[in-house]
Amino acid sequence: MNAPRRVGDIQTPALVIDAAALEHNLTTMANARPGGRLRPHVKAHKSTALARLQLAHGHRSFCAATPREILGLAAAGFTEDLLLANECIDPQRLRALAQLDTDVMIALDSEATIDAASAAGIRAALIDVNVGLPRCGCDPNNAGRLADVARDRGIAIRGVMGYEGHVVGVADRTTRSEQCRNSMELLAQAHALVGGEIISAGGTGTFDISALPTEIQAGSYALMDSTYAQLDTPFRQALFVATTVVSSNSKFAVADCGLKSLGMDHGNPEIANKTVWFCSDEHTTFSRPEPVGTRLLVTPAHVDPTAAYHELYYIAEGANPDAAVIDEIAIDLRGW
Amino acid sequence: MNAPRRVGDIQTPALVIDAAALEHNLTTMANARPGGRLRPHVKAHKSTALARLQLAHGHRSFCAATPREILGLAAAGFTEDLLLANECIDPQRLRALAQLDTDVMIALDSEATIDAASAAGIRAALIDVNVGLPRCGCDPNNAGRLADVARDRGIAIRGVMGYEGHVVGVADRTTRSEQCRNSMELLAQAHALVGGEIISAGGTGTFDISALPTEIQAGSYALMDSTYAQLDTPFRQALFVATTVVSSNSKFAVADCGLKSLGMDHGNPEIANKTVWFCSDEHTTFSRPEPVGTRLLVTPAHVDPTAAYHELYYIAEGANPDAAVIDEIAIDLRGW
Repeated sequence: MNAPRRVGDIQTPALVIDAAALEHNLTTMANARPGGRLRPHVKAHKSTALARLQLAHGHRSFCAATPREILGLAAAGFTEDLLLANECIDPQRLRALAQLDTDVMIALDSEATIDAASAAGIRAALIDVNVGLPRCGCDPNNAGRLADVARDRGIAIRGVMGYEGHVVGVADRTTRSEQCRNSMELLAQAHALVGGEIISAGGTGTFDISALPTEIQAGSYALMDSTYAQLDTPFRQALFVATTVVSSNSKFAVADCGLKSLGMDHGNPEIANKTVWFCSDEHTTFSRPEPVGTRLLVTPAHVDPTAAYHELYYIAEGANPDAAVIDEIAIDLRGW
Repeated sequence: MNAPRRVGDIQTPALVIDAAALEHNLTTMANARPGGRLRPHVKAHKSTALARLQLAHGHRSFCAATPREILGLAAAGFTEDLLLANECIDPQRLRALAQLDTDVMIALDSEATIDAASAAGIRAALIDVNVGLPRCGCDPNNAGRLADVARDRGIAIRGVMGYEGHVVGVADRTTRSEQCRNSMELLAQAHALVGGEIISAGGTGTFDISALPTEIQAGSYALMDSTYAQLDTPFRQALFVATTVVSSNSKFAVADCGLKSLGMDHGNPEIANKTVWFCSDEHTTFSRPEPVGTRLLVTPAHVDPTAAYHELYYIAEGANPDAAVIDEIAIDLRGW
């Protein structure tokens, strides 16, 4: 395909980023949490080119959810301060992380994860603490003991992390703040037992709520989605799925994006001024139809699993079919 | 990574196919609908290697949902009878299909799709008929007129297709049969107006219900998912997501598969003898916990968007961690 000059020339379905909205989001966050007070989470966008923009906004520490994301960041020159904010017990992948010429930490929440990290030669870690989300993380009361075990095995424990994932999406800010405070109290208890200079927590929904974390692990803020848009954050929708109407009648029309170009766990995507009826593999049916050939920009309900389906982002000077396409960047951190 | 010898050696998350279940499914379908009476839909598995197994079971006609699937099939040597069972108006992609040294048909449901096909040099097509699913397809009464328009433009119209997607998943077979009959009556009306030797319809849930279709477009039957498993089909679950428990406590455990390795539009995946609480990007939390390091096989709720997240299938002699891995095949038809 020739490089598209306008959003309306892009072969669909494809991801489009509104450059001004992205820049607004990166600047807004960098002002609120400059430098090391933000550890951008690359799991949301899975792109080293986008991480480089975050670096240009002053953030030098990054975190990731998969070993492949860490290895990809390191290969792209992000060698200063990387955190695998996830548990991993795979010996091969842990060895690959340990052998990087990079300052890499991982998350530990059990003796089994400590055993695996120690055997692979991992040198630094955070103790991952359960702060209310039923997922990874140790009991706060057990954090100090685990830190001792890890240190005895030669792993430098630099602090704690705890993700209040059950809180970041709560719509009402007062409730969200209250629940976040409860979670951060648990994290503070754990940190008192563990020590270390890092208290890593949070996400896009709680980036400005608590004074406790030394750094926030936010990812979605850069691109946003229709779920986060329901909160009162200062971030703008920057990510869209460009799509083309391929079938139309008097009642409904069908756009060429579907379950394989959209993360669906948060429900249907949104189309401005339309009602989305349902998505199937390669289609989205909506009412208030438009003619065949109409280009539309669809807002995904959840950015992370949407990005993971795609190979690249088109960067555009606006979020409309006439906007100029000014760049293409690879989604080069897919997979595990 | 060294090639894994057992399912329990595979780096997780990853797709695993139970070879015996796959073989059962392919044989069962080939017995029920031999040769050209089945047009396997590659959108479900997105793999030319898996299509080759379907070819070895006697099916020589294939259908696909995206131009890239068709181009990939053609490049892999499937040059006999390919159908893009979807509307496409992209001039570049249509030209690429028209220039293949392959017998390619596409679906047409409007004058706009006919215009695009004609301009690109497409030589053959089916008229796509709406048989009740609010998606692509023309009004049955309009099918004959569209066929005339297309033929006037030099496009050979070989018949009709109509996908009763609103019917294929209906749990009760009597209701499913009745609704399928209604849809096939609409398709028969359209075929009477259009003519041609092909009446293409159906899916895994209706492959044996109607006598009308000359061919069935089934895809899910090969690998299956937990949604189709609720029907009374003779097909077995062949596809699993291999996963590892990475965190565990007395109440729940966390496996390393999530929203980026599972299609979620049909809901949570299933784990035998466990209750799945929820999935997040890289995790599935479930109760009745197992220790860290335990290998589990997770059954996806929807095969198509699950396969689209992955790069390959491991073929195994069984669906358990001790089963031998006997092959790896690429998922080489991803994207559009």
